This record gives sequence, C-alpha cells and structure tokens, in this order.
Amino acid sequence: MAAFTFSQLTPTAFLERSARVFPDRTAVIDGDNRFTYREFADRSRRLAGALGPRGIFPGDRVAALCSNSSTMLELHNGVPWAGAVLVPLNVRLSAEELQYILRHCGARLMVADGQLAGIAAEVASAVGIPLVIAGGDADGYEQLLGDAEPLARPCEDERGLLALNYTSGTTGRPKGVMYHHRGAYLQSLAMAMHTGLGPSSRYLWTLPMFHCDGWCFPWAVSAAGAAHVCLPKVDAQEIWRLLRTEGITHFSAAPTVLTMIANAPEAEQGPLDRPVHVQTGGAPPTPTLLARMSGLNMDVTHLYGLTETYGPLAINQWHPEWDDAAPERQAELKARQGTGNVVADALRVVTEDGADVPADGETIGEIVARGNDVMRGYYLDDDATAAATLAGTGDGAAWFRTGDLGVVHPDGYLEIRDRSKDIIISGGENISSVEVERAIDAHPAVLESAVVGEPHEKWGEVPVAYVTLRPEADVDDGQLATFVRSRLAGFKVPKRFVYGELPKTSTGKVQKNVLRGRVDG
Amino acid sequence: MAAFTFSQLTPTAFLERSARVFPDRTAVIDGDNRFTYREFADRSRRLAGALGPRGIFPGDRVAALCSNSSTMLELHNGVPWAGAVLVPLNVRLSAEELQYILRHCGARLMVADGQLAGIAAEVASAVGIPLVIAGGDADGYEQLLGDAEPLARPCEDERGLLALNYTSGTTGRPKGVMYHHRGAYLQSLAMAMHTGLGPSSRYLWTLPMFHCDGWCFPWAVSAAGAAHVCLPKVDAQEIWRLLRTEGITHFSAAPTVLTMIANAPEAEQGPLDRPVHVQTGGAPPTPTLLARMSGLNMDVTHLYGLTETYGPLAINQWHPEWDDAAPERQAELKARQGTGNVVADALRVVTEDGADVPADGETIGEIVARGNDVMRGYYLDDDATAAATLAGTGDGAAWFRTGDLGVVHPDGYLEIRDRSKDIIISGGENISSVEVERAIDAHPAVLESAVVGEPHEKWGEVPVAYVTLRPEADVDDGQLATFVRSRLAGFKVPKRFVYGELPKTSTGKVQKNVLRGRVDG
Repeated sequence: MAAFTFSQLTPTAFLERSARVFPDRTAVIDGDNRFTYREFADRSRRLAGALGPRGIFPGDRVAALCSNSSTMLELHNGVPWAGAVLVPLNVRLSAEELQYILRHCGARLMVADGQLAGIAAEVASAVGIPLVIAGGDADGYEQLLGDAEPLARPCEDERGLLALNYTSGTTGRPKGVMYHHRGAYLQSLAMAMHTGLGPSSRYLWTLPMFHCDGWCFPWAVSAAGAAHVCLPKVDAQEIWRLLRTEGITHFSAAPTVLTMIANAPEAEQGPLDRPVHVQTGGAPPTPTLLARMSGLNMDVTHLYGLTETYGPLAINQWHPEWDDAAPERQAELKARQGTGNVVADALRVVTEDGADVPADGETIGEIVARGNDVMRGYYLDDDATAAATLAGTGDGAAWFRTGDLGVVHPDGYLEIRDRSKDIIISGGENISSVEVERAIDAHPAVLESAVVGEPHEKWGEVPVAYVTLRPEADVDDGQLATFVRSRLAGFKVPKRFVYGELPKTSTGKVQKNVLRGRVDG
Repeated sequence: MAAFTFSQLTPTAFLERSARVFPDRTAVIDGDNRFTYREFADRSRRLAGALGPRGIFPGDRVAALCSNSSTMLELHNGVPWAGAVLVPLNVRLSAEELQYILRHCGARLMVADGQLAGIAAEVASAVGIPLVIAGGDADGYEQLLGDAEPLARPCEDERGLLALNYTSGTTGRPKGVMYHHRGAYLQSLAMAMHTGLGPSSRYLWTLPMFHCDGWCFPWAVSAAGAAHVCLPKVDAQEIWRLLRTEGITHFSAAPTVLTMIANAPEAEQGPLDRPVHVQTGGAPPTPTLLARMSGLNMDVTHLYGLTETYGPLAINQWHPEWDDAAPERQAELKARQGTGNVVADALRVVTEDGADVPADGETIGEIVARGNDVMRGYYLDDDATAAATLAGTGDGAAWFRTGDLGVVHPDGYLEIRDRSKDIIISGGENISSVEVERAIDAHPAVLESAVVGEPHEKWGEVPVAYVTLRPEADVDDGQLATFVRSRLAGFKVPKRFVYGELPKTSTGKVQKNVLRGRVDG
C-alpha cells in the first residue's frame, strides 16, 4: 500500500490550509487587533515553538484561562502543534475548583488573560506551575511569541488526545472529557457544513471558547476561511453594535442569551439588513423567542449535545417543506433536538434494559450515543466512564449514556423531556419540567422560567416555578396557574410561583441545582 | 479506551443518515421514476441483500455498466453494503476494453443498463460472469430487488477497498485506481461543503457517474439530503429543460460541455431565474466561456483532480474580494487550478529532484500530492504504482506524481501549464499547448481549439492547431496566426490550422492522442 495516503485527521489542518488559501484575508478581529490568516497561523506556530523551551513536551497538558480572544484561538492550534493537550478552563470557576482541575490534569503550564491575572496567579502559584499572562499590565505572551521559532508538529495519531474539557459538574467533582484529533476534525466539518460557513462569513464569538472547545468552531470557522470576531463577555449592547457594524453572519448562544439579545433596547432599531444564522442549544428555544428572532432576521437552528459529544451531536435539521407550516407548528418542530449530525452515528433512545423505545413521541427513554464525535472517556476516571457506558446491545458495541431523557417522534426526530435528574415525580406521575416551563413561557408576561421539584408529604414531589417577568408586566400566581392549567394536566401546574432573576452558569444555562437548593432549604 | 468511539468512515453512512432525517423527501429523479430517501435506501439495501445469494461475498468485485441512473446511485451504496467492491465502467469503451477490465479486476457480477444490454451480454458471456440488466426489455434488476432481504453490512475497515476506477488510459492498458471508504467519505464532505449543497439543492447529473465515482457526488448529494436529478446522456436541450423546470441548483461538467450548453439555442431564452453552481474541471474555463455562463446566472467553480485523487483534489477557491476585479482579470484568476480542497493535504509542485519550485508563477514543475483523497495505488499493478510514486522528500513520505506540469503563483494557487505529454518542445523551447489554446479561443470566431505537437525536421516539434469555429464565423489561417502572434511569442504560433469538430472522450475531454495520431500519420 502506497504511503501517500492516510494523513492523520487533525483540526489544526484547517488553519494550515486557510493560511495557504487566504493568507491576506482577515482571520481574527479582537478589539483593536486584526490578524490575517497568515498572521494567525504564524502566531499559533510561534506559540507552539515557545512551549518546548518552556519544558512542555508532547502529551503534556497546557491549561487556558481565557475569555474569547485571539490568544484562545491561537491556543487551540498552537498547543496541538506542540504535540501538547489543551485544557480550556471555565473562567467563572472558583480558585479551589481551578486548582482541582489543574492538579487532576497535571497541567505543566497555564496561559491566562490579563483581566484574570489575579486568580490565575493565585492558582498557578498554589499548584506550582508557570503562568503566562496575555494582555494587560503583566503581558508575557507577546514576548513569548516574539522570541519563539515557529513550529507545527504533524499529528502522529488522530486518535490521540487533543484536549481535556472539564464538565461544569453541578454535583461532585468536575470530570475531564477526553477529545481526540479525529473527533474534533469531523465535528468541525459538520459544524461548518450544517451552518453554511464560507469565506464570506463572519462568526461572532458569543459562545465561550472554553465550553466544549467552543463546540469546535475555533477550527470550523478557520476551515471555512471565515473571520472570527471575538467578544470578551456577553453584553447585549456590544453584540448589537457588532451585529450592525461588523457584518456578522453567524453566532451561537444558549436560549437565555438569545432572549437577552432579542429583548435589548438595541433590538428596537429593527431587523438586521442580512440574515444571521444562529445556533442554539442547552435548552429548546421557545415559540416566543423564535418569533422574535425571526422578526430580527435571525434564523435559529436548534442543536443538541454535551461536553462528552464535542458539543452538538444532534441537529434539528430543518425541512424546506416546514416553511409552509403555521408559526406555532414551526416552533413545535424546532423545539425538538433532531437527529445525529452529518458525521455522527445514529442516536438511540433506550429503556433501562437497552431496548429502543418505539417512535411514538411518548415513550420516554435515555438518549445514548457512540461514534467519532463521542468522547474517548473521562480522563483518569474509569469508574465515571464505566458509569456512563451502556454495555453492548444488539451488535455488541458500547454506548455513551447522555443522562438525558427523551422521546422519538414518528419522523425519527428526538425530543428531550428532561435531564434524568430534572424529572419531577409527583404522585407516581412523571412531570417533565421542560414541558411545564414551555407552558409558562408562552404567557405574554413571562420572560423565562425554570421549574424544579419540591419535597411534598403526600405527593413525594410537587413542581415549583421560578419566573422572570418582562419589564412592567403584571400578572399574579392565580393567572399564571390558570394559564398553565389551560395547557397541561392539573398535576403539572406549579404549586408555587417565585419571581425574580434566574441563577445561571457562565454558559447561560439555568442552575437548577441552585433552585433545588432553595426549595430544599 | 471506551468502545463508543471510532466508527469507521464510509460514504454509505450519508444515505443511511438521510433516510433517517429526510425519509419522505425526494432523493432521486430518473425520468418518470421518483424515489424518496426511504425508498432510495431501501432499494440499495435490497440490492446489497441480493448479492450474497448470487455468490457475491465481501471483497468481491461488482462491475457496473450504467449511464447516470437510479440504478447506478443504488450500486454506489448497495455494493459497499454487501461488503463488495464497485467497478464503474466507462459506457463508451469497446467490448475488448471492457473484457480486459472485467478480467483484470476479477469481476464476479455485472449490472448494466437496458440500453447497453447488447454489449453487456457480449462481454459478460466472453468473460463468463453473470449479468443483471436494469430496465428495458430484459429487466432482471427490479426482480432482484423485489426478491431480496435488505442488508447493510457495517464497514469493517475504512481503509479497505471501496471501488476500482479504471483510468481511461490514452496509452497502454487501463489501470485500476483503488478507492477506500475513508477517502470517499472525506472527499464527499469536501464536495458538499465547497459547493454549498444543502437540503434544498437539486443536483443535475451531467457528469458521468462512472467517472471517478461521479467525483464522489453520489455520496455528497446524499450527505446534504439534496435531490439527484439523473440525466442518461448529455443533451443540451434536455439539460436546459431540466434547468428551467426542475429547480436545478448544481451541476458539474467539463468546459467543452459548458460551451455546448452556453451556445445552445435554449440559452437564448435568457438567464436562469436562480443562481446555479457549476463545477468544472479537466481544462480551465476560458474567459469567453466564463462571461457567457455568468450572463446565464451560472456561477462556475474551477476544480482540478484526476481519477487517482477521487476527482477534484484542488479547488480554485474564490476570494470575495476578487468580485471587484475587472472581468478579464477575474477570468485569469479563475483559470488557475487553485489549491488543495478542505480535506486534501497541501499540493506541491516539484522539480525532477523533488525540490519545490519557487512561487513565481513561472517555474514549471510536476504537481505531486498525498493524503486521504489520494488513491491507495493501482490494483494489481505495483510497477505502475511505483512509477507514479515520488520517493520521500523532506519528511520521508512518498508523493503521488500527477503527471501534470504547473507553476505556483505568488499567492500559492497552482496553474497547470500542461500534461507532461502535452508539452510541445520546439527548438529547445517548451510550448504549453494550453497557453496557445487560450490565445486561439480568445478570437471571437473560435468556439474551441486543441493544439498538439507535429514532428519537424528543424525544430523537433511545431504546434498545430485543431479549431472548431462558431456557426457562420469567417476567419482564415492568416488572421488566426496574426491574432495569436499579437498575444504570444512567435515560436508558439501554430504552423498549421485544421478546422472541424474535435474528437472527445465520453467525459468531454479532447482526445489529444487522436489528434497526435493524425499529425503523426
């Protein structure tokens, strides 16, 4: 067999290629800094070249505590080019949580943004590893690049470790999800293809790059030869400024962030002058939100996945025929999580004994997955990996248990009914908190809501609703309860309504564990 | 390492997926037959199931002598699903050539279109293998599917043999180019992404499916969930009918076919009411052709590749900024072959000793390639594989020698100057026949031309031009010679002009070997 076949699949190949094809086109916009693809690749290669002299060898872990910045994009390419493993850190974590992760992954170096220099210095010192600060008063990163020789080690094994993404872990210690080059390469192509990224696209970085490696968009955007537009923090005013002045064509965000954008004063200036493709996930977009986004010329695609699946494993792929459905029906169709993306294996929904549930839109089972865009396992945690593994069924292969409960509709599209832990069991009946939230959200006075179970002597659990109202909206418990009762069975109507802001993670997900803590307390 | 990762890459996964996602959408239109994705997948699985009982086991070769038809699309999925190897045959070959290929590949079964039943029966009988006819009076194919149990064997090795594509081989015996599952999977994704195929697309099958497995579009179109619109033979009137009535969004064809389409009477009815994406290759499109296509609302992308590279290995990827260039300059930019596609490794242009030529747009070298979309080698022909291999240079890896001579422009885009054998050497000077052809084609009276070398006592060789004039055009040798001399050095001006139709292969390439035969004789 000739040796000119079988190059290793690695997502850094996309930056190499775009530096060849589009050397002088804009690759990265980060505040006042603009880098071409030639510069972006050169800086990433210099970063790679700087690591060896600092004692980083192939296989070593390099942690990144960065907001959405050119530095973080360079780390996504430069660290693999040094043969090392990237560990993106959630910038909202506490010093204690960061130390745990740094020790668990055995990080040998940390790179942090200037505005995070304080906490970065604290944890790097506690763990005893060197720290490089990018930007700000203590900038050492530019010096590092300036002194280095460019390096781009070829990937020697596409199934080798590319990155460790620690799950935010609402309970227990964070787990390190192992990504390999092959999975990230394929997932990047899938993201680029499904979202229609091309050389004219401009991708706004609303999604944190530390979250599932930014769902692989640091590589997907580069594969398309599109421009990365960095956004250091989610700010509706700044997002609208960039949407209106930087020719943004794509961005990704959780529905709560979309709600914030759609309800910002800047939205009142009217729809965008070009269609913007928006990818959302983490929770289904509500009909109300979809209608508002559509009115702003933003076309929302609903994706579904987990840290363990390189982000979006599934896509609610829109059928052109559905454009003719009534808006309410379109929203129902779009609320579904869909089916495996173009590089994913088929998803399954299975009962406890591993049998497929019928495609009836009613029978709830656990969503399980396998394939190239499913993690290798949890780093140094075989017990957790085993617990997430459904032993071979049918053809003997193992499946990853997502922990998400859902149904399969007759057309094959999945719809999540709940996270296993978010199902409320009341009087022996399962109540999907998502379903109740959707009913509440349909009320015109409601901005968003979260429903959790509260212990109850008679029923075991009863649903309690935490609700954020729209500004100047006026509604009371009785009106909301009546509204929900007109849409759902009586036992699903929340027994209490609590008004105020919802607690959220840095990626915009509602922290139901916090709410559960409130009701338990 | 968990077993839920690392599914084998195989292009048949795309049809499996689209049958899940788009079961009721139109997949194939073939004359009066229309099949949904559910039906397309079911028919392909039945084909796979029918093969075992007919004595076809994994690894066996199944030959296909088919025009662009639903049968041929089913063979591209059903044969791999049986674990067997597809051998697409050029329908224009002689009985003797077909027999040679069938014997060389050791075909165990042949499937042929009804209109090719005569020659198919002759060669199958001569070689002693069973024959299944699809369509026409002797149809056995529908019976075969009707009797079969559906089967879709999982691909066990992505580096295993998927197809053998025999090169048309203008000299010597045809060689069997080995395609593997991995290469076809990646090339399919690249084609879908670069051409912007999506669920609303309709792909017109002007390109023969037997040619490089239709450049992998049988799988790429299915990956996008788009519709295949079959065309049994290239006919300008029928192409225009389908373009105007079937909502075609994409097709692929050699420049000679595009010239035919652009000059057909039906083109006079004016531009299409939606943009159509056209992929072309085999020769650079001329400025004249590009201008005509653009006026018809057809956007041409120039691709480059060989049978040995799964079709288009390179793409002239358009820079949005080039839209502002003058039409003449745009045509010059588009005439270049470009650079490796999104899944291809970097191409190189090297001197005889394997050194890279400078990127000066002038120094000619041979284009060499390697990577996942380069063939495994020639089937049962290690000598030919060795002859096409450039031993390791630089990092020690081997490169496939394309036999094409080209230059690298300062921006990294390649431009072919000639096939090695098409270079004319006159008085010690190299004359690029492509360059002379482009000069002749710029004359308003000329439809197309081909230039070959003629033996000459004094100069070794001199260029001779074969020219097809536009209808009712009026020009003589002297005028053409003067026109060419105004654009090129004197020694490049053809010494003779011969007028008439150009001989072409079934894929629309001019047969220069036939022309050389004429001048030699």
